[in-house]
Amino acid sequence: MDFQWTKKDLLSLYDLSRDEILHILNTAEEFKKVSQRNVKKVPALRGRTVVNLFVEPSTRTRVSFELAEQRLSADIINMNADVSSFRKGETLLDTLKNIQALQADIVVIRHQATGAPNFLARELNMGVVNAGDGAHSHPTQALLDIFTMREKKGRIEGLNVVVVGDILHSRVARSNAWGLIKLGANVTFAGPATLVPREFEKIGVRVCHNLKDALADADVINLLRIQLERQQRGYFPSLGEYSRFFGIHPETLRYIKKDALIMHPGPINRGVEIDSAVADGPQSVILEQVTNGLAVRMAVLFLVAGALK
Amino acid sequence: MDFQWTKKDLLSLYDLSRDEILHILNTAEEFKKVSQRNVKKVPALRGRTVVNLFVEPSTRTRVSFELAEQRLSADIINMNADVSSFRKGETLLDTLKNIQALQADIVVIRHQATGAPNFLARELNMGVVNAGDGAHSHPTQALLDIFTMREKKGRIEGLNVVVVGDILHSRVARSNAWGLIKLGANVTFAGPATLVPREFEKIGVRVCHNLKDALADADVINLLRIQLERQQRGYFPSLGEYSRFFGIHPETLRYIKKDALIMHPGPINRGVEIDSAVADGPQSVILEQVTNGLAVRMAVLFLVAGALK
Amino acid sequence: MDFQWTKKDLLSLYDLSRDEILHILNTAEEFKKVSQRNVKKVPALRGRTVVNLFVEPSTRTRVSFELAEQRLSADIINMNADVSSFRKGETLLDTLKNIQALQADIVVIRHQATGAPNFLARELNMGVVNAGDGAHSHPTQALLDIFTMREKKGRIEGLNVVVVGDILHSRVARSNAWGLIKLGANVTFAGPATLVPREFEKIGVRVCHNLKDALADADVINLLRIQLERQQRGYFPSLGEYSRFFGIHPETLRYIKKDALIMHPGPINRGVEIDSAVADGPQSVILEQVTNGLAVRMAVLFLVAGALK
Repeated sequence: MDFQWTKKDLLSLYDLSRDEILHILNTAEEFKKVSQRNVKKVPALRGRTVVNLFVEPSTRTRVSFELAEQRLSADIINMNADVSSFRKGETLLDTLKNIQALQADIVVIRHQATGAPNFLARELNMGVVNAGDGAHSHPTQALLDIFTMREKKGRIEGLNVVVVGDILHSRVARSNAWGLIKLGANVTFAGPATLVPREFEKIGVRVCHNLKDALADADVINLLRIQLERQQRGYFPSLGEYSRFFGIHPETLRYIKKDALIMHPGPINRGVEIDSAVADGPQSVILEQVTNGLAVRMAVLFLVAGALK
Repeated sequence: MDFQWTKKDLLSLYDLSRDEILHILNTAEEFKKVSQRNVKKVPALRGRTVVNLFVEPSTRTRVSFELAEQRLSADIINMNADVSSFRKGETLLDTLKNIQALQADIVVIRHQATGAPNFLARELNMGVVNAGDGAHSHPTQALLDIFTMREKKGRIEGLNVVVVGDILHSRVARSNAWGLIKLGANVTFAGPATLVPREFEKIGVRVCHNLKDALADADVINLLRIQLERQQRGYFPSLGEYSRFFGIHPETLRYIKKDALIMHPGPINRGVEIDSAVADGPQSVILEQVTNGLAVRMAVLFLVAGALK
Repeated sequence: MDFQWTKKDLLSLYDLSRDEILHILNTAEEFKKVSQRNVKKVPALRGRTVVNLFVEPSTRTRVSFELAEQRLSADIINMNADVSSFRKGETLLDTLKNIQALQADIVVIRHQATGAPNFLARELNMGVVNAGDGAHSHPTQALLDIFTMREKKGRIEGLNVVVVGDILHSRVARSNAWGLIKLGANVTFAGPATLVPREFEKIGVRVCHNLKDALADADVINLLRIQLERQQRGYFPSLGEYSRFFGIHPETLRYIKKDALIMHPGPINRGVEIDSAVADGPQSVILEQVTNGLAVRMAVLFLVAGALK
């Protein structure tokens, strides 16, 4: 590992080279070992301040980042959508420039606006870590997905990875594809035609509207959450219909590879995109993804902090 | 103290033996000494993570637990009813399994559903500490009540303890009774018949609907808060009526023992269940209960952490 | 610096002597050096607990205090307007007495009621730091303003400081005046007559309703935020009108001193009280105020903690 990380921000796997992605994964492996010790803390970010600014709320991602920061011994500030300066009409950039003036080192930001982290990264000296922006990018989720695949399968090159569900609105799907293709995997996007338009072929993935065809050769099946609140818009007739054609049921397991991994970024809708027997079954690595997320986020924060100043 | 604590959870005083209760009280005594030092911290939970999940909100109990955790040097995550995964339809158990996958060691949970902590304790490897579930159990409140009685009276055995108020909806009353009876106290539940049904005699308490009779021999008077929001349901005619017949006034002090303790779990309704002259008077130990709560919660977290793995 | 600080509270610059104000500024200078080191933490408040009780919400001030507390290594509890005990009808004083019984050392309080911190300071043994009460006082804001002026201008004595805007509702304006006058500055309040009544002359400031006259000799221009929510009450015809007569525009820069400082407590309303070209221009020290706020708050907490017990 004589690779030298130089980026002060983590914005998107689209921006990263193959070597950079591999360097994060390797660093995360080291941090995973730390997490298995009795005292799980390292002093790597002691005296450094990380601000978690979740303008779009997400408890699960926020908690994962916060735990990663605690284990790196950082000082932590949590801010959310209620930030009163937003209500008082302050611009996002002014809010962030204030945080920077308070000598924070890194901001972890989730925002509903595509590109907000990229804009901020250009304007700020602080490190910016994207914790999800609009339907654009969610790099740490994709990194933890890829980390889990590599850990379980021993490689990424040549793996057949199928992402199933509402690809259209999913930053997880795009981020998976960008990272996986760079590392040599074959990526398929599967789901109803309304949610998986052919346009996605342009980024180098296979598009498939029949689940059985999509899963036949799959080494990894990454299921996306159906956002119940989006159902009204008519992308599919009903949850029951979606579940019947694109959910993973015990019967699905009969025609997929016995060692195919079942993944899901969570939170899962039991009985919609995944049945309980599958979610809790031996092929599911859903909870291991959560554990790996911690190691990946420690690695990202550690590398970004090292590139500051 | 060669007693060996083995439980990874604290769910209810109903489940604990006399020796276990005494062991917690003795451990809390040690921690109370720590709280009187200038630097109030010990490294007992350093590198361990405690999640405070308050699905039913309670600032006072949450803050008491959080301070106890800080003094044990734990890493702390606060989650509340707004947890976005609940809004997204995730089950409580899935949320907790995620927290466990993030390698948290202990969850402190308050939930409106009776039995939620017991259910979770069975399903999880993490330690589970009940911070109040429905009208069922609130073990750390009862433990701090008993700790305070023992500290002030030198014993529990043979003490006459009267709990006054809305027993029907009170986890504090039940939890007090379970613990106190095991330690040999005589427990009376007093209040209007609508709020103190005779059924409670089955758990071994005396039921009394006349305050003067109930308090005549009392060594300890533990007042419950009248929940203003429940008043509409017609359990008693009005707050004024309740206060007249079951509130503690300066005149009440004339017919009770001069050394009877006045206790209250807080927050108090001045002028309803207790007059200011009584709440702030020499027999009141209400604020000492708060201080002792810290020591008791440090003890519980310390013991539970020691029983993990 | 053989001055000995003895106050357990910081309530208002009105209460402080010239020497006390200077001692805070000098102490803050020392802490500013700490903030420029790589590890920005000192163990001064290790094992001490600070409660941030923001009954009136303010993310920016809360975060500044929280960071100051982290850098002093304090244990920190955050409570806000949602504090459930308030909803349950507990008095403010009872809530605070509970916090004190939990052995907190200092409470940092923001409250909409004028005088709330003064009342609490008399009743509690804890230290009380006022983070803003009603339209009365906001001492740490004024201290950071004065710190910034002294740092940039080398002195306070003889400086011409003009505060512009909604003086009537501003605790910042009053606090600035109290402190600056004690240190020998000449203070002018400028703005529309509806927002800057002549009564203010009684506290020793000049009142001026014409911006050009007010700014002619200004060494420091401290702009207040126009609270958009207050606009309906008819203090001025419209935001456009306010901006035209009392906003600072590039043209304004032509008739003020070239080395006059432009200050603002934030959050700024770009295009209302200040144009972007001015806010981001070379005379603006707005973000340096934010940085200095950290050092000033560290100093205040450090001094108050030292005076306890």
